[in-house]
Amino acid sequence: MKAKFITLDGIDGAGKSTNLAVIREWFEARALPVVFTREPGGTALGEALREILLNPATHAGLRAETLLMFAARRQHLEDVILPNLANGVNVVSDRFTDATFAYQGGGRGVETADIEILENWVQQGFQPDLTLLLDVPLEVSLARISASREKDRFEQEEADFFTRVRTVYLQRAAAAPARYAVIDSNRDKAVVKAEIEAVLSARLLGE
Amino acid sequence: MKAKFITLDGIDGAGKSTNLAVIREWFEARALPVVFTREPGGTALGEALREILLNPATHAGLRAETLLMFAARRQHLEDVILPNLANGVNVVSDRFTDATFAYQGGGRGVETADIEILENWVQQGFQPDLTLLLDVPLEVSLARISASREKDRFEQEEADFFTRVRTVYLQRAAAAPARYAVIDSNRDKAVVKAEIEAVLSARLLGE
Repeated sequence: MKAKFITLDGIDGAGKSTNLAVIREWFEARALPVVFTREPGGTALGEALREILLNPATHAGLRAETLLMFAARRQHLEDVILPNLANGVNVVSDRFTDATFAYQGGGRGVETADIEILENWVQQGFQPDLTLLLDVPLEVSLARISASREKDRFEQEEADFFTRVRTVYLQRAAAAPARYAVIDSNRDKAVVKAEIEAVLSARLLGE
Repeated sequence: MKAKFITLDGIDGAGKSTNLAVIREWFEARALPVVFTREPGGTALGEALREILLNPATHAGLRAETLLMFAARRQHLEDVILPNLANGVNVVSDRFTDATFAYQGGGRGVETADIEILENWVQQGFQPDLTLLLDVPLEVSLARISASREKDRFEQEEADFFTRVRTVYLQRAAAAPARYAVIDSNRDKAVVKAEIEAVLSARLLGE
């Protein structure tokens, strides 16, 4: 198969970490070449920008933050995503541009059209082959966040913020069903795992 | 007078440091409120991004670098430039968007139209009231750089690079003479000083 670019996205607490392991096992079981990466991050530049974004001393306003997200993304594309795809290696990214539309857009108010301008500037038409959108109800997301992790800057924000974020994710998936697979991850882990495996087999291998 | 935004720009080695002092003295002699700032930098975020850009370990490609320049600029506008102007304080910036057109554009090849997209995204029509463009011939620039400073990443590049940079600066000034004043700084310091003082008096005070 031609190497594919797969992104995993969704509201905090939707189970990305658990299901990244599911995706990894799926590729390993088939001996398909794959690299795993994440945003923001994935390159030395991206990791440095990630630290800046999480550090209150280097405050970035909303529009500056959005530009930094896309700067990290551009480098991620040039250094990791596009070279691996060109070499026949599949790439799985923990978050991609959908997260910018959901968090900086839906969550914090940057206009969709303004994000699209930067998306075009950076990606020049490039898009994931498949986006797995993990979806859980808001109360599940909030419970998982408070139970399992140190809160960071984004996670301290309000429940209505996460409602807006989730809504944007679902709207984007509904508007482009050929690219997205929405996975209800508020179910038994084995059930979610089986559905993700089925989606990967169908969408990537035509099985 | 209404507070003004003044930028000082030009090819490396054109004498910005020396002539920033001239501008400072001009404002102090008239007891006009003024703050001095610089790009990239001018905010905690900008200084952190400046370090990233100068650090080879966090390599930023040309398009990522251009996005970082505009992220720093957006924060600079929000935190320093616009609040001071709103409070009646003049702002003088050592470099501004002209430098992005000259260095990332003319010098390194980002399309002018692509830089204009980001300029509009970040500045939303805002422009300096006056840009003092210091101009020297290429050989003067190169001699001053090699004589006086540690070379940084930009300054190690080639003579034809600086020729392209200088050309873009001069083209921009020629296209908008109401905003720019081109100062030939390849002359005796006292002569350059007198011309800058005359420009500031004429353009800012109508004298």
